[in-house]
Amino acid sequence: MQWSESYDPSTNGDLINLAQGVPGAPPPARVLELLAQSSSDPSTTRYGDLRGDSGLREEFCKDVNTVYGADVDSDAENVITSGANLAFAVTVLGLAKTGEEIILPTPWYFNNEMQMTMLGIKTVPLVCQAPTFQPDPSTCRRLITNKTRAIVLVSPNNPTGAIYSHELLQEFAALAKEFKIALVLDETYRDFLPEGYRPHDLFSDPSWRQYLIQLFSFSKVCLGNVDKCSLAALEQTNRSYAIPGHRLGSIIGPQPFMQQLHKALDCFQICPARPAQRVLEWSISNTRQWREATRDEILIRQRVFKDVIANECRETGWKVCVGGGYFAYVMHPFERVSSEEVAKELASKVGVVVLPGTFFSPGFEDVDQDRYLRFSIANVDVDTLRKVPSRLNKLVEMWSSL
Amino acid sequence: MQWSESYDPSTNGDLINLAQGVPGAPPPARVLELLAQSSSDPSTTRYGDLRGDSGLREEFCKDVNTVYGADVDSDAENVITSGANLAFAVTVLGLAKTGEEIILPTPWYFNNEMQMTMLGIKTVPLVCQAPTFQPDPSTCRRLITNKTRAIVLVSPNNPTGAIYSHELLQEFAALAKEFKIALVLDETYRDFLPEGYRPHDLFSDPSWRQYLIQLFSFSKVCLGNVDKCSLAALEQTNRSYAIPGHRLGSIIGPQPFMQQLHKALDCFQICPARPAQRVLEWSISNTRQWREATRDEILIRQRVFKDVIANECRETGWKVCVGGGYFAYVMHPFERVSSEEVAKELASKVGVVVLPGTFFSPGFEDVDQDRYLRFSIANVDVDTLRKVPSRLNKLVEMWSSL
Repeated sequence: MQWSESYDPSTNGDLINLAQGVPGAPPPARVLELLAQSSSDPSTTRYGDLRGDSGLREEFCKDVNTVYGADVDSDAENVITSGANLAFAVTVLGLAKTGEEIILPTPWYFNNEMQMTMLGIKTVPLVCQAPTFQPDPSTCRRLITNKTRAIVLVSPNNPTGAIYSHELLQEFAALAKEFKIALVLDETYRDFLPEGYRPHDLFSDPSWRQYLIQLFSFSKVCLGNVDKCSLAALEQTNRSYAIPGHRLGSIIGPQPFMQQLHKALDCFQICPARPAQRVLEWSISNTRQWREATRDEILIRQRVFKDVIANECRETGWKVCVGGGYFAYVMHPFERVSSEEVAKELASKVGVVVLPGTFFSPGFEDVDQDRYLRFSIANVDVDTLRKVPSRLNKLVEMWSSL
Repeated sequence: MQWSESYDPSTNGDLINLAQGVPGAPPPARVLELLAQSSSDPSTTRYGDLRGDSGLREEFCKDVNTVYGADVDSDAENVITSGANLAFAVTVLGLAKTGEEIILPTPWYFNNEMQMTMLGIKTVPLVCQAPTFQPDPSTCRRLITNKTRAIVLVSPNNPTGAIYSHELLQEFAALAKEFKIALVLDETYRDFLPEGYRPHDLFSDPSWRQYLIQLFSFSKVCLGNVDKCSLAALEQTNRSYAIPGHRLGSIIGPQPFMQQLHKALDCFQICPARPAQRVLEWSISNTRQWREATRDEILIRQRVFKDVIANECRETGWKVCVGGGYFAYVMHPFERVSSEEVAKELASKVGVVVLPGTFFSPGFEDVDQDRYLRFSIANVDVDTLRKVPSRLNKLVEMWSSL
């Protein structure tokens, strides 16, 4: 991020990078050991099943079936992809032709919009209003045309962190069924639901096969909770799948759709990279407990961040609107100033790197709608998060002289 | 391949699989050891540069610059992709919009045609005539319209094995420059040029930046030459990059085009899978000698296969038309019988699995044009190849009673 290049750490301390949504720490030694074992086995240097290795699909679907009360068939209804972005790409390619439409709530994950534009699919924005940033089913209904092929929902959301309730997802499911379009549900951050949120039960109704496609990523389970669990406990647990560098994601969908996807997967990936698949297969069945610990740590970070901003920034006007998963969506206090300008000054003057709302939205009609910034709070520990409010306040103090 | 399921090995011996173009053997122990080392380093579990790791790009471009007498800039003019199929996908996406045209010689690599159809790009077939299967520049010229955005050439070719001479490539380069369209040159099998063929020198003329895009794969360097080099020598050499399971390919192109590609790469791959990149970086600078030995072995297989078919199948009418890289394109002796039917009988009756020409072509006007089969001779050793002619002859004997 160029904006931070002019930042001088001697003024406020080291740069705090809350820009990219990355796991906070590498996987434990035992997982690295298993990755080494798998990579040194000659069989993983060869081409594999284009759908991903069957062992991984079986373990993954077993886990999904437990979590969601589902009966997903690992052979016919699941594929492993070279990352969740490729999962999104082949999914929308399978759903819509050039000129057809897919509804995507804003703020959106920019790669989703970029991908569809690149593929000639029209992205229809469903504006989620501040401060809750929930998508509204009745607004969505009005956007559906005879060219609409799907609604895409990301929950917990990237960038806002908004979490969609079970009931809201049911409303969108009903909409998809009514109009015979797909509901693409990206659950990359599904392991970070706070207390009180249970996993949706769309999968437990067999009619999911009429409309539902679920995307998942093996990159985001965060192992950064060394300030809660001790490192020793972490080593003992030996389980995780925070391995973005290995590029693995997943698609679950009804069999006829998946069969059509195989052709696309053959053209794009041949097979996903193989060594880590075997390690994930081993990890999944043993990782539930660990994922809960990880989730707890992320929830602590979310709570601490909300608290410190609420307590220390009341007078300067910074406000956390929503938070969930890796992200918090924060309103800045500067009237008639674009989020991009604020992000730039945050990075260069007080050393806090975040992404401006403009990155996640089509153009705004009014600059005062452009008041939000994405903070990726999963990247750093609680002590670092506690340093953020004073820097935000510092920027407010400096603002008139900038 | 279902056709081979009904084959009974007690009749003619074990199944001989010459269907997929795969390396004949896994990489040597030292490479596996390095893969293990790289995978156990926590840094490779993290996201990397979307263009691929800079170290790999530097080593790869240094090698390309040596082989081709070029001055490719590893930072601006090269990206590493999650496999060569993804390299093709993002390249054609970057070159052509829906409804625009790309010229592709037939027989074609089916994934290329499938990918373009999926992306809404019109594939214009440039028919290469038997028995040489060379693309003709004057025929190509007549196919160029104001919607043409590129010509794709694969040399050594998949599926035919035809190798395009330096002079022929120059003619296509001139055509691309004249019409200001791209020449996409897929050199996946470039390491298998026979004696007398030097690498093209398109890269040594700086005007390559007006038209040329080169695709490459790190999957195809074959380590199957254990019947020539001893296994001990192989272990000692310790060098190769026959690691299709790690999914790595490359694109070289002019800077403005590559910059535009970065966006697409971000949407499709974020970054290529990381652990093997470091190993390739290490391998490339030490692998030239090894690649020559590997090439020699493939050339021996090509020569042996041509010789045994020529000597033993003269009377039954099987004929090797062309051969190069991993493949030989073979004419079958059955008049008015489709290649698909012949391939099916070859698999089920005499246990030789090959792919029919229909897989690599648009529909034929006359069944007598459909006389060719792809044999992937890189998959098996010379002793196995020597067993093929008697099986082909056996099928001719059986044919009237089938």
